[in-house]
Amino acid sequence: MGDKSWEDLCQHARETALLESTAGLLEWDERTKMPHGAGAYRAEQVSYLAGMIHRRRTDPQVGQWLEELNAEPLEADRHGDMATTVRELHRQYHRHAKLPNRLVEELARAAVLGQQEWVEARRNNDFASFRPRLQRLVELSREKADAIGYKGARYDALLEEYEPGENSANLSRLFAGLRAELVPFVSELAASTRKVPREILNRRYPVALQESFGKQIAEAIGFDFQRGRLDVTDHPFCAGAGPSDCRITTRYNENFFPMAFFGILHEAGHAIYEQGLRTEMYGLPPGAAASLGIHESQSRMWENFVGRSRSFWEYTFPLAQAVFAESLRDVALDDFYFAVNDVRPSLIRVEADEATYNLHIIVRYELEQALINDEMPVAELPAAWNAKYREYLGISPPDDRSGVLQDVHWSAALFGYFPTYTLGNLYAARFFECADRDLNGLSGHFKRGDFAGLRDWLRTKIHTQGQCYSAAELAQTISGRPLDSESLITHLKAKFRPLYAVA
Amino acid sequence: MGDKSWEDLCQHARETALLESTAGLLEWDERTKMPHGAGAYRAEQVSYLAGMIHRRRTDPQVGQWLEELNAEPLEADRHGDMATTVRELHRQYHRHAKLPNRLVEELARAAVLGQQEWVEARRNNDFASFRPRLQRLVELSREKADAIGYKGARYDALLEEYEPGENSANLSRLFAGLRAELVPFVSELAASTRKVPREILNRRYPVALQESFGKQIAEAIGFDFQRGRLDVTDHPFCAGAGPSDCRITTRYNENFFPMAFFGILHEAGHAIYEQGLRTEMYGLPPGAAASLGIHESQSRMWENFVGRSRSFWEYTFPLAQAVFAESLRDVALDDFYFAVNDVRPSLIRVEADEATYNLHIIVRYELEQALINDEMPVAELPAAWNAKYREYLGISPPDDRSGVLQDVHWSAALFGYFPTYTLGNLYAARFFECADRDLNGLSGHFKRGDFAGLRDWLRTKIHTQGQCYSAAELAQTISGRPLDSESLITHLKAKFRPLYAVA
Repeated sequence: MGDKSWEDLCQHARETALLESTAGLLEWDERTKMPHGAGAYRAEQVSYLAGMIHRRRTDPQVGQWLEELNAEPLEADRHGDMATTVRELHRQYHRHAKLPNRLVEELARAAVLGQQEWVEARRNNDFASFRPRLQRLVELSREKADAIGYKGARYDALLEEYEPGENSANLSRLFAGLRAELVPFVSELAASTRKVPREILNRRYPVALQESFGKQIAEAIGFDFQRGRLDVTDHPFCAGAGPSDCRITTRYNENFFPMAFFGILHEAGHAIYEQGLRTEMYGLPPGAAASLGIHESQSRMWENFVGRSRSFWEYTFPLAQAVFAESLRDVALDDFYFAVNDVRPSLIRVEADEATYNLHIIVRYELEQALINDEMPVAELPAAWNAKYREYLGISPPDDRSGVLQDVHWSAALFGYFPTYTLGNLYAARFFECADRDLNGLSGHFKRGDFAGLRDWLRTKIHTQGQCYSAAELAQTISGRPLDSESLITHLKAKFRPLYAVA
Repeated sequence: MGDKSWEDLCQHARETALLESTAGLLEWDERTKMPHGAGAYRAEQVSYLAGMIHRRRTDPQVGQWLEELNAEPLEADRHGDMATTVRELHRQYHRHAKLPNRLVEELARAAVLGQQEWVEARRNNDFASFRPRLQRLVELSREKADAIGYKGARYDALLEEYEPGENSANLSRLFAGLRAELVPFVSELAASTRKVPREILNRRYPVALQESFGKQIAEAIGFDFQRGRLDVTDHPFCAGAGPSDCRITTRYNENFFPMAFFGILHEAGHAIYEQGLRTEMYGLPPGAAASLGIHESQSRMWENFVGRSRSFWEYTFPLAQAVFAESLRDVALDDFYFAVNDVRPSLIRVEADEATYNLHIIVRYELEQALINDEMPVAELPAAWNAKYREYLGISPPDDRSGVLQDVHWSAALFGYFPTYTLGNLYAARFFECADRDLNGLSGHFKRGDFAGLRDWLRTKIHTQGQCYSAAELAQTISGRPLDSESLITHLKAKFRPLYAVA
C-alpha cells in the first residue's frame, strides 16, 4: 500500500513540475522575447496553468496518499529523500488546501492590478492614488494569513511561504543585532577621509564587450551555458524552465561597469544553485531549493563574497584590462577594487552596496510587519518610511518615488519576502566563513582563478541537499551553531575598515 | 440546452487552445533559444501537454455536446460561425476518437525515433539502416488510416488530416495534368540560349544588412512585428504561441542573397495569414486556418507571385541597391530579376525554383501513395525515387542523401503532407489571378510599393473566413470554378517564356 502511494505521489508531483516549468518558460518568454501585442493572451495562458497547478496541489487524492505515508515510520531518517518528500509535500498540501479558491483568485487578480497601478503611481509620484489598492492587498494578505493560521505573529504565516520554519520573533532578534552594529559602522565609514575613485567605473565599457566578458566570468565561476542562457531585460532575474534549463538576465549601461557585471554574478549565483540541485529529484522537495534566504545566500556569495573580494580581482582585473583596454589600461588594481566597494547611504535598495543594503531591508521588514499585524494604518506608511530612512541611513527621500513607491513587492502582495534578502546575506557570510576554513583560505583559490573548490563545497553542502534540511538546519549542520549576525558583521568590518582606513 | 452545450463546447475548445498555444511556445523555444542540455526534459514537457490535449479532444463530454448541437438545424447557415464550429469540431472529435491511445503513443514514439535515425542515415548516406524504421512507420500509418476509415484509397484517410475534404482521386487528376505540362515546359526553358546572371546573387550581402532589409520588406508586405518576431534557425519555420504571437525564422548566407530574403517572404506569408485570422475566434474553427494547402498558398503568394515578380523589384530593387551598394551598384534591374528567377532541374526540393518545384512534390506524392496503399515495398523506394527523377526532371541523384533521404517528413510519419505544397502553388495561382482582376492589375500596386490592396483582399476573402469554407470551397466561391492546374500553368508560361526567350 505504502509503496503504491509513494510512487503515485512522486509521479503526481513530477507531473505538476512539468506544468510549473512550462509556466516558468511562459514567464521567461514574456519578460524577454514576447511580442508586445501578445501580453493579454499570455496572461490567460499563465493564469490557466496557475489554476491547473493549484488544483493539482490541492487534489484530495494527494492528501490521501500523504495520510497513508505519514503513518509509516519515517522519523528514523528524517533528512532522507522519502521523509523529506512526504514532510514537505504534506506541509505544502495543508498550506494550499487551507486557502479558499475565492481568496486565491482574488489575491491573484488584486496582485496583477496592484502591479499595474503601482507602475502608474511610481511614474506620477502619487502614493495617494495607490493607497486604496495597497489597503486591499494588506487586508487580503491578512485574511490569507488567518486562513493558514500561526502560532506567534500573523506575519509569520506569510513569511513561512518564502522561508519555511522561520518566524518573526527570531528574525527581529537577528535584525536588531545587525542594525545595532550596522548603523554606527556605516557612519564610521562615511567619516573616512579616503576618497573612492568612482570615476573609473563611469568610463566607456562597450556593451558587446561587457556581454562577452560577463559570460566568460559567469562560466569561470560555474554557470553552465549548456544548461542555461543569458539575455537582456530591464529588471534582471533568474528563471527556470526545467532541471537543465536555467536562464538569467541582466541590463547594460555603457558608462557604468558594475551594473551588468555584478548583476550577472548575482543571477549566476542563483543559477549555479539551481544547476547544482539533483536533476533526478526535479519536481520533488529533495530536488528543490531550501528557501528564498538560502537562494539569496548563493547569489550574494558570488556577487559580494567572491566578486567584490580583492583576491577575485587579482585574477580578474588583468583579464578586464585586456578587454577594456581603453578604460582600464592605466588603472591600478587597488583603485579598481576600492571603486567596486563604494559604501555610502543611498535611497534606492537595488543600487545599495554590500554594507548599507541590509538597512534598506530592515526598514521594509519592520514596516510590513506593522501593516500585516495591524499596528499601523496604510496611510501612515510614507511618513514612517521616511522616518526610518533618516534614523537608519541618515538620509531622507525627497519624494515617494525614491521612497515608499520604489519596490514592486507590496503591490504584488509579496509580504514576508523582503527579509529573505538579508537572511541571504547572513547565510552567505556564515557559509563563506565555513568554506574558507574547510578549504584552507579561499583567497588563495580566487587569486589563481580557481572557483571550483568553493562551488563544489556549496554543491555538496547545500545544493544537493535540496529541502532535506531547512535553512536553519543547514546553518546548524554546516557551521555547528545557529544563524546569527556575527559572521556578516565580522566580514564587513574586516573588509571595509582597512579599505576606508578607519579604526 | 443547446445554448448551454454551445457555450460549454466553445469554452472547452478555447481552453484546449491555451494548452496548444503553450505547446507552440515550447516548440518555438526548443528550435530557437533552448539550451542544448534541456532537450530531454523539453520532450517530456511537450509530450505531457500533447497527451493532455489529446485527452481533452477525445473527452466523451465533447462528443455529448456535439450530439446535442448536431440535432439543431444548422444547415441553414452552414458557413456561419456556429455551424462551422460544430461541423469541424465534430469531424476532429470523431477522427481523434477512432484512434486507440496505444496507436497514438506508438506513432508518436516511432516518429521521434524515426527523425533521430533519419538524421544519422542521411549523414551516413545509408538508406538500409533506416529501412526497418521506415517500414514500421508505414505499417503504423496504414493502421492509423484503417482505424480512421476511408471511402476511396487508404491514403485518403491520412491526406484528410492536412487537407480536409481532399482525396487522392482528385489530386491525381490535378497533378497528372500539371505534370503533363510541366515536364516539356521545363525542357523548353532548359534549351534557352539566354544565360542567367547567377553570379550577382553570390556577391557579398552582410548578414546584419540582410536581416534589417528582410524585416523592412516583411513589414512592408504586412507582417506585424507588434504581434510577431523574426529569429534565426537552420530549418526556417513559422510557429504560433497565441492569437497575437506568430514567430518566423530564417537562415542567412552572406554569399547567397535569395536564401534568407525569399525565406522571410515565405514565412511572412504564413504569418500574415495567421495574423489575419479573427482574433476573437482564436481556438475555434472559424478562427483557424482552412488547410495546409491554403496556408502554403499564402506563403507561396508572397514569396513567388509577389516577391519574384518584376513589378515587385521595380519598387524594391532601388531599396536593395541603397542597402547593398557594394554588390548591387552596377547591376541592372532586369539582370537582378532574371537572377532571382533561375529555373533549372535540381536534386534538392527546398532549393528548387518556382517551376520545377512541383515535379519534386509529384515524385513524393506518387511514391508515398504506393507505400501506404501497399503497392510498393519500402525496399524498392530508392530505385523508384531515382527513376522518377530521371523521368520528370531529367536528372538522377548520385546518392540517397541527395535523393530519397533528403526530407524529414516520412521519418516523422507525415504521409499525406507533401501534396499540400503543390496544392499551395495551385491555390496561390488561382487566388492571384482573381485578386489581379478584382484589383485592376496588381503590378501597378507593387511598382509603387503598395501591398495593402492584395493583403486586404486576402484578409477578406481567405484569412477572416477561417474554416468556414474548406479549401476547395474557397476556390469555388472566390473564382467561381473548382481548382485546376490551369492558372498555375498560365502564370508560369506567361512569366518564364519571355524571360528565357522561348516560344
